[in-house]
Amino acid sequence: MLPAPCRPLLHRCSQQAAAVDTVGAASRRRRHRPLCVPSGPMRASAVAQQRRADAVGRMPPLAHRELMLELAGEAEAALGARLLPSEVPADVAEFRNAAGNALGSVDVRRGVPGSSVDFTLEAWFHRQLPGGGAIDISSLIFVLNGATDAPHFLMEFIQGGPTSLVILLDLLPRKDLPLHPEYITKYYEATGVDAHRRSIERLPQVRPYVSPLLLVRSLWSPTAVVVDVQCGEGREAALEEIVQGQLATSAKEVLGVWLEHSAAAVEMSDAERESMVARDKMISATELELNLSANLPRMFDADISARVVAEIRKAFLGH
Amino acid sequence: MLPAPCRPLLHRCSQQAAAVDTVGAASRRRRHRPLCVPSGPMRASAVAQQRRADAVGRMPPLAHRELMLELAGEAEAALGARLLPSEVPADVAEFRNAAGNALGSVDVRRGVPGSSVDFTLEAWFHRQLPGGGAIDISSLIFVLNGATDAPHFLMEFIQGGPTSLVILLDLLPRKDLPLHPEYITKYYEATGVDAHRRSIERLPQVRPYVSPLLLVRSLWSPTAVVVDVQCGEGREAALEEIVQGQLATSAKEVLGVWLEHSAAAVEMSDAERESMVARDKMISATELELNLSANLPRMFDADISARVVAEIRKAFLGH
Repeated sequence: MLPAPCRPLLHRCSQQAAAVDTVGAASRRRRHRPLCVPSGPMRASAVAQQRRADAVGRMPPLAHRELMLELAGEAEAALGARLLPSEVPADVAEFRNAAGNALGSVDVRRGVPGSSVDFTLEAWFHRQLPGGGAIDISSLIFVLNGATDAPHFLMEFIQGGPTSLVILLDLLPRKDLPLHPEYITKYYEATGVDAHRRSIERLPQVRPYVSPLLLVRSLWSPTAVVVDVQCGEGREAALEEIVQGQLATSAKEVLGVWLEHSAAAVEMSDAERESMVARDKMISATELELNLSANLPRMFDADISARVVAEIRKAFLGH
Repeated sequence: MLPAPCRPLLHRCSQQAAAVDTVGAASRRRRHRPLCVPSGPMRASAVAQQRRADAVGRMPPLAHRELMLELAGEAEAALGARLLPSEVPADVAEFRNAAGNALGSVDVRRGVPGSSVDFTLEAWFHRQLPGGGAIDISSLIFVLNGATDAPHFLMEFIQGGPTSLVILLDLLPRKDLPLHPEYITKYYEATGVDAHRRSIERLPQVRPYVSPLLLVRSLWSPTAVVVDVQCGEGREAALEEIVQGQLATSAKEVLGVWLEHSAAAVEMSDAERESMVARDKMISATELELNLSANLPRMFDADISARVVAEIRKAFLGH
């Protein structure tokens, strides 16, 4: 869920961060490789997955990216047999601008029929900016289907420089909360997720992040982490410390809560289920139109953006 | 909508603020008197209204109370014939603790049958604290009925000391916003209310206020002002300046937006109307149970709280 329009860069990126990374790529590829590599001829999906891992490995090393890779790997392992293999084409698993100033990778995996997972989406974008510096965005979105009313999982990091990071971390509610206090109790109170919001907001470098889009603001749960971390020029180490410390702790725990609840089927009437799924579609459409469709063209050539958005649309809206 | 539990006092109240006020009461009574005083024998409702004005006039003078009085008067004048006369009993229009350490006044007026107003609620509480200092709370809530889908109006100020104020100012949405982007456009985008949230949040003394209750957080619109103003010890003048300056400007404009939209009937299907009114009832119940029922006993003797809550329940829930 990108801020739209993308926030102006407040800090120039360090040369190290802006340069194409080769050091360390191998270790990240190892970590991000699926746990079971198919034996025999490599299938199309495994190829796509390897391309994505390679693309991410070629982006500059950033603490937020390391954390996201780790969490994506954990989730992939935990969801395991509930996910179908990736089927994104090669030019979505990795894409770059003709000018060589932007690199991206998107992976979508649908849930196995009968599971509660609708789809998972990972997106990784790196864009060097004309005046120096770069913007780096990593997103992880896990969307459930009508088998459960458990919230969707959303984690997104938008790094506008070495000391500046927008953090979006939430379990997106699937019901109109004022009408469903029991939903709040089950997924937000009993799970203790609000403690993580509090811990992150307590950090002195953290301010609220307010999306310019009112519709986007209306999607968040009452425990959402929606913040802007500004550590101040030269304080790269402070940002890394936050990412590797409090953010890593909180993000892992919130993901853990989601994983714990995401598999359980939930009894509801057909009418309730239909209305919930219709709401899901509205949220997905919002995410797609206001976030990705509006922002990808700011980072990538038009033909590339169009191709990637079309692929994501298939996952989000089923067409 | 009180923070629950009430926030601890951060600053001791000045003697002037804590003392029972007599100076200035007459002028406030004048301002708050209904525009048309019934000629002939004073009716029960007019007596109740006068008692309320007297009670508020006896509370210590505070900039936030002056502002609230002014806005309540403006709204009363604008709503005019759409409101029935007040019918609260004398011991709700004014009540005080046996120990003399707390003074309160509540007024409820129902809408005229056929109008779009369900009811209006004004509440004024002043409580001296054992260690010195005081807590002062003023609330104005205007609730609409099924004739329109326009938002409800809520304004509440919770002053915990001469330099400390929680501000809640919102047009409470009556629909599940992610499902109704057109509702956001009509009532929140086209009306420009978000500019007021921005202006207030930009003040250096302002921090977000986060209710400890997740259900309460879920009621706010995306443009709600939900903030904690802390001016720092000795800086009473700074708080007054904020209240009389930016807050007065913003509160008047948001009230103006509400007044402009509150009268227009809105076409909708019976099913839509029923579901909206059911949602309204949930919101009212939340407000009543989590806010007033939980907090009034912290300020007033048990029998007084029970009587006042019962009166408010009649307005909120119709029984």
